[in-house]
Amino acid sequence: MPAPIEFWFDFSSPYGYLASRRVEALAAKHGRGVDWRPMLLGVLFQRVGTAPLVDYPLKGDYSRHDMLRSARFHGIGEFRVPSRFPIPTQAAARIVLWQKATDPALAARAAHAIFRAYWVDDIDISSPEAAVAAAASAGVDAGAARASIDDPAIKAALKSEVEQAMARGVFGSPFLLVDGEPFWGLDRFDQVERWLATGGF
Amino acid sequence: MPAPIEFWFDFSSPYGYLASRRVEALAAKHGRGVDWRPMLLGVLFQRVGTAPLVDYPLKGDYSRHDMLRSARFHGIGEFRVPSRFPIPTQAAARIVLWQKATDPALAARAAHAIFRAYWVDDIDISSPEAAVAAAASAGVDAGAARASIDDPAIKAALKSEVEQAMARGVFGSPFLLVDGEPFWGLDRFDQVERWLATGGF
Repeated sequence: MPAPIEFWFDFSSPYGYLASRRVEALAAKHGRGVDWRPMLLGVLFQRVGTAPLVDYPLKGDYSRHDMLRSARFHGIGEFRVPSRFPIPTQAAARIVLWQKATDPALAARAAHAIFRAYWVDDIDISSPEAAVAAAASAGVDAGAARASIDDPAIKAALKSEVEQAMARGVFGSPFLLVDGEPFWGLDRFDQVERWLATGGF
Repeated sequence: MPAPIEFWFDFSSPYGYLASRRVEALAAKHGRGVDWRPMLLGVLFQRVGTAPLVDYPLKGDYSRHDMLRSARFHGIGEFRVPSRFPIPTQAAARIVLWQKATDPALAARAAHAIFRAYWVDDIDISSPEAAVAAAASAGVDAGAARASIDDPAIKAALKSEVEQAMARGVFGSPFLLVDGEPFWGLDRFDQVERWLATGGF
């Protein structure tokens, strides 16, 4: 069984959400699973010296337009820019990370539910309660999920994930690692596809 | 005859070069011409608050890797990262802008020749002499091209082009405007293709 595709993302990332709707089918087509790796873009941005797309003059206006057009281009009708954007996503990331340790498949379903809450239902998942409710709708234990957000071990685990992301060259969302080969952005899915089909080019 | 596609670019942009190798075929397929619009990315970066890709930690390493992989992905074998990169491109931009006024087709051939000198033959086209030599190899009058670089009217025209770029939302290279619709990056050529085929989506 070949290694899963590492899917690094931040819940607050529009292209991360769009990618989350496509990554499993892309991986499955080539006999791969997906390793869901939530991280914190804010920490990466600080390291790289960048800022959220929408904070830049010109680039910000374009990206608000492009994310909606890209959703249409990829046939993802369920998408809207949330009222509050971007947001901190520690709570959501910790829930997924904690659930992954015991049930990765359930953690993936929880990730989908959290993405949907934010990008489809306009729920501010920076609130621990909202993040827990979204995860619970996917079958996650609500009480345990709520506890995980304040668990020092889970906090440390997320920090370590973000450190690992940077150590491996991740600086944006979505970011895919395919057998170590890095691909940044939904717009590299065509290259990922060929990479998986041919073993590299 | 539908309006030409506006192709905004900086000669120092790797993805701008790769796009220059594909934009005419893409346009022609849909009965369009290409309006070559050289501009100065450095001025745009100042306005937007960004920097050359390769100057960022992590992102810089990735982009050096990605530009080579993207060249292979698009079947463009003639590509290497120049010894000096990025570079100022005023001289080259002024030649193309000057030539465009009297012979746009020749200006386009000159643009190809200048791109090739820099991205294939590793010639530092920031030097007026090197930029002139590249343009002359495409049939441009060398003496007149050399004079255009120091011509106050051409200098002002390029400044005005850069101002117009920003006024119209251009902030990177390559940047396409298709009947006013903005597309940033070679990796939006798939969306441009559908846009041209369907009239918008």
